[in-house]
Amino acid sequence: MATCQSRCRRPDDADGRTTRCRTLAVVLRECGSRDSWTSRVSGHGAERETGHGSARRVTHVCADGSVGRNGTDGRLEVARRQISGQEETGFEVRSQDLEVPLEQYRQWPKFPLWLVLDNLRSAFNVGGLYRLADIARLAGLTTCGYTAHPPHPRLDKTALGTLDFVDDTHTETTLEAVSDFQSRGISVWAVETTSESRPYTEVTYPQPLALVFGNEALGVDRDVLETCDGMIEIPVFGYKNSLNVASAAAVVVFEILRKWNYDPGDRVGPEDGEGS
Amino acid sequence: MATCQSRCRRPDDADGRTTRCRTLAVVLRECGSRDSWTSRVSGHGAERETGHGSARRVTHVCADGSVGRNGTDGRLEVARRQISGQEETGFEVRSQDLEVPLEQYRQWPKFPLWLVLDNLRSAFNVGGLYRLADIARLAGLTTCGYTAHPPHPRLDKTALGTLDFVDDTHTETTLEAVSDFQSRGISVWAVETTSESRPYTEVTYPQPLALVFGNEALGVDRDVLETCDGMIEIPVFGYKNSLNVASAAAVVVFEILRKWNYDPGDRVGPEDGEGS
Repeated sequence: MATCQSRCRRPDDADGRTTRCRTLAVVLRECGSRDSWTSRVSGHGAERETGHGSARRVTHVCADGSVGRNGTDGRLEVARRQISGQEETGFEVRSQDLEVPLEQYRQWPKFPLWLVLDNLRSAFNVGGLYRLADIARLAGLTTCGYTAHPPHPRLDKTALGTLDFVDDTHTETTLEAVSDFQSRGISVWAVETTSESRPYTEVTYPQPLALVFGNEALGVDRDVLETCDGMIEIPVFGYKNSLNVASAAAVVVFEILRKWNYDPGDRVGPEDGEGS
Repeated sequence: MATCQSRCRRPDDADGRTTRCRTLAVVLRECGSRDSWTSRVSGHGAERETGHGSARRVTHVCADGSVGRNGTDGRLEVARRQISGQEETGFEVRSQDLEVPLEQYRQWPKFPLWLVLDNLRSAFNVGGLYRLADIARLAGLTTCGYTAHPPHPRLDKTALGTLDFVDDTHTETTLEAVSDFQSRGISVWAVETTSESRPYTEVTYPQPLALVFGNEALGVDRDVLETCDGMIEIPVFGYKNSLNVASAAAVVVFEILRKWNYDPGDRVGPEDGEGS
């Protein structure tokens, strides 16, 4: 639907960025019915890139509202102020795609946190970790050993379009990656269940920090564990106690962002984390 | 290796449960070399069930240590006391499989939290959510609409053996599930990005609670959102901002467990959550 591609634009944040704002009223007018709006605008973002091109074009309610640096409350307040249409239910379903030029996005500070993937065997999991590195605006991701890395046809598919937005590196061995981070003054912690691991919610995370996640079956290699500066673990309460590695990483990463008050600091790009 | 299947057993916790304890010293003696030990004992649990039967038989360092109800610190202390062997690096790599009879496990209280899956299309994601319901010992999981549900060959594979340990229900529609929970006094919240959603870290979660997760592309259905008692969202900071639904659920569930101080309360089984 051609009219769905039009957008209102206005320079309206402190830095003078031009943001794109779409209210429910606009969407309803253009799409013509609540049903079509519902199917187009709803969505929490998971895998919506696959075959939902038209939906993506009409879902950008408030792009800059999702990346504000003034904490979560401020972010939501910005979003609420920018939404002018109100439906009978009193709320808008927003999606989360960002629509600023990539060059501009790359100037925004990233959280000084890296993911280090120690010989993961599943390209699906690696794709999920790229998606995590994107959504959390992490400083970077290092694939080690036989971990799938670009160019890789399955990874292109499973990363759902995030490959271009994550600063990634590949090393032949995980030990090489750990050594490189440490030589740059970046602490390296492993996420692994050991007798010395501390619960991931009960630690103070240093900045900058690299987190090592291990192979789906074997975990983090013993030699790598011995080299790391710390070890954390997720508590378990079940019978099988099996958690997907990308899910485990999401749990830890969002806890770290919470502890950092969602403030990425002033570092820009992958090299500014040096010299902690 | 036949000798790897032997275990020391001793009744050593307050409830007189018989636990199985395996120290590094025992493993090293039986497996004969550090290399074989490393490949057998390490692992954070993700997908280790697939083709690693021998590894599973030697990885149970301290089964009851991972499910203590006295908070995380107490749990680790129990684990540390039970580990008698010390290697040069000074720590043991533990795995997390639980080895108590299923009937006994079913008597332990579960966290009064349910997952409600609103027409998920991916059996892989549903399997991941079963794994999450197991590892977090949730009260139950409800599959709705066309969400894959047992018996289902792909789900058997993707749930990695957790189907038997999760109390699950299937309903034809998500609205039916929401209505059923509410009639039993269980609050129902949707995890969805809307203008009225509150950040998942900044809310007080009621007990008992059911969480609705929506279709990977469409999100939670609008009619379901209107019926829910609350809406929460995960903040996003990236460019594509796409998070796998099972990862998103893991982030929210472990935050809720943290806020509940990892104390499941006294409820046992799926029906004891009634009458909040």
